[in-house]
Amino acid sequence: MQISPIGVINTPFNDLKGMPIQPSGALEIEGTLVIHPEYEQGLRDLEGFSHIILLYQFHQSTGYDLMVTPFLDTQKRGLFSTRAPRRPNSIGLSIVELTGRDKNLVFVRGIDVLNNTPLIDIKPYVPKFDVRTVTATGWLEKAQKQAATQKSDDRFIEKQR
Amino acid sequence: MQISPIGVINTPFNDLKGMPIQPSGALEIEGTLVIHPEYEQGLRDLEGFSHIILLYQFHQSTGYDLMVTPFLDTQKRGLFSTRAPRRPNSIGLSIVELTGRDKNLVFVRGIDVLNNTPLIDIKPYVPKFDVRTVTATGWLEKAQKQAATQKSDDRFIEKQR
Repeated sequence: MQISPIGVINTPFNDLKGMPIQPSGALEIEGTLVIHPEYEQGLRDLEGFSHIILLYQFHQSTGYDLMVTPFLDTQKRGLFSTRAPRRPNSIGLSIVELTGRDKNLVFVRGIDVLNNTPLIDIKPYVPKFDVRTVTATGWLEKAQKQAATQKSDDRFIEKQR
Repeated sequence: MQISPIGVINTPFNDLKGMPIQPSGALEIEGTLVIHPEYEQGLRDLEGFSHIILLYQFHQSTGYDLMVTPFLDTQKRGLFSTRAPRRPNSIGLSIVELTGRDKNLVFVRGIDVLNNTPLIDIKPYVPKFDVRTVTATGWLEKAQKQAATQKSDDRFIEKQR
């Protein structure tokens, strides 16, 4: 399956170091989705939603290891139990607040990705579909509160493999 | 960007007609993620989570229209304000309950996809990252309650374009 970006995400983060690791650590950060003009019509009705789901490419990450030490832990965990960017298919997922739209520009708040990240898809965030009553969050049980203050470092920057 | 499946999703749904359109309409439906054995190590620690996020390929859908009539509405809406499967990058997203794992087999409940759907990624579902206090759900405002009973039809089956 071949993926072609529908646009790019502009954010204030030009460097992985110091970037929030999750939207919960970037609630006030504003960004702009610059959608390729040929897709503009598909953005209609989007501004009715307060939150949207972004799928994007972790474009600075290549290769992967099946066991990784996540930002929020000190021991190695199975890759698929983490949100680490270096994955077999390096697609990221963030839920952000939608603040407005002007033609092919979509304005968002609470964005935690690098500037110029290739955007793959936008979906409406719908509580009935996307909110679950969770009973366990594994190794993240204690760590998830810390996600709001933890910043990124360079551990997931592109490596020679 | 080239995507290669990490496995397939087995479900009771061999036909789009009559399939639930969202996990909220398939809460009791059980399925199995059959992960390619070379990725098995990356599944460690996953069973600590009660819910996981699946990214998968809408493999029966090709092409797209920028304005679509969603299952839950009677008028055309901008594609990116819908969860319709025919998209520029036909990637689907579902949050499901994790019920167990045996080596490279991951057992899930509340699955709303076709049998043999190619699986692209698994991520842990973490309320701190993935739950937002939503204030507006646009055209879905009235319709989302209906999602639990609405079934699919053939409108998004592969079309010649």
